[in-house]
Amino acid sequence: MLTLYGMSSSGNCYKPRLLLAKLGRPFRHVEVNAMDGSTHSPEFLALNPNGKVPLLQLEDGRILAESNAMLLYLAEGTSYLPDAGFERALVYQWMFFEQYSHEPYIAVLRALKKYPERAHQATPERVAQLLEGGHKALAVMETRLEKTRFMAGDDYTVADIALYAYTQDAAFAGYEMTRFPHITAWLERVATHEGHVPMEWLP
Amino acid sequence: MLTLYGMSSSGNCYKPRLLLAKLGRPFRHVEVNAMDGSTHSPEFLALNPNGKVPLLQLEDGRILAESNAMLLYLAEGTSYLPDAGFERALVYQWMFFEQYSHEPYIAVLRALKKYPERAHQATPERVAQLLEGGHKALAVMETRLEKTRFMAGDDYTVADIALYAYTQDAAFAGYEMTRFPHITAWLERVATHEGHVPMEWLP
Repeated sequence: MLTLYGMSSSGNCYKPRLLLAKLGRPFRHVEVNAMDGSTHSPEFLALNPNGKVPLLQLEDGRILAESNAMLLYLAEGTSYLPDAGFERALVYQWMFFEQYSHEPYIAVLRALKKYPERAHQATPERVAQLLEGGHKALAVMETRLEKTRFMAGDDYTVADIALYAYTQDAAFAGYEMTRFPHITAWLERVATHEGHVPMEWLP
Repeated sequence: MLTLYGMSSSGNCYKPRLLLAKLGRPFRHVEVNAMDGSTHSPEFLALNPNGKVPLLQLEDGRILAESNAMLLYLAEGTSYLPDAGFERALVYQWMFFEQYSHEPYIAVLRALKKYPERAHQATPERVAQLLEGGHKALAVMETRLEKTRFMAGDDYTVADIALYAYTQDAAFAGYEMTRFPHITAWLERVATHEGHVPMEWLP
């Protein structure tokens, strides 16, 4: 059975959990707290030298890091990832957009609000910078979702899972979601798509 | 013919150029200066609402953003990207690592040194933060390259192109590369691999 090391309140850790639930694929969840140093213990660094969760361990012991790499790997051959071609390239595009232009703002501001351990980092200057970058990323998503039902086109793919994980909490984090009606409609489409489970869900 | 919009001194823009050169695939290069506001002109934003280069335009006009998405798309079916399976998953892993844990430190510190327009951002505090994050990313690469010849395994893949683009300039940026002998040997392996072209190369 697959083993997924993750912190259940992390959006990045939710991504593979959501896909595995939708695929009906059993796995073992091992809770690892990324806030108390557990991801930098010698034992954990031996599994992932980059000291991050989620971390996926295959039946044979092999290890895969990076939430979006897990999504692409686990979705291969399923309806959640198109075969080679341009629509698949767009899935890649939106997943790299998520990690570079979206997550470093929206996930970080969410963490400043959610975790008391991070609250001291929420200086007015830092919050303003995270709001600006996140609103810019949301505007790029909105422009896309004016034209298509899902991020890569007409169909739900792992690009939607990648971007849903933190966008669903953007309002909580402090972003003005009333400015983004197409994102709001897309969040609802994702949350009502077959087999959806909320972040709280564990196997 | 493919059209690649890019700034020739950018590592992210070098990535697809290097792969296209290795594949012997002709393309048209359109220079776009990311420092003078050209990527935020109304004309450019109509092509890429995220306002970034590189940007790839296919023969039929379709547009693809994100350097690593281009690498995966263009490498499909070639020796630079393994077929579905775990080695391919490792290619994904290292490419997401590059965009999240490596580029935001090493490319940014390089830019502070390389571009006079950015020099004012090089406060001691910012430089120290970029050095710390970049050295951490390089240590993760070093741990990997102690065991394998290339990032995803025994063979050169697009993960090597993604990580080579800025690692080759890490010494210039200020990182202590003498601490990373396995990376240094890998840089030489990449630079002497068949069909390699330096960043200065244009079609």
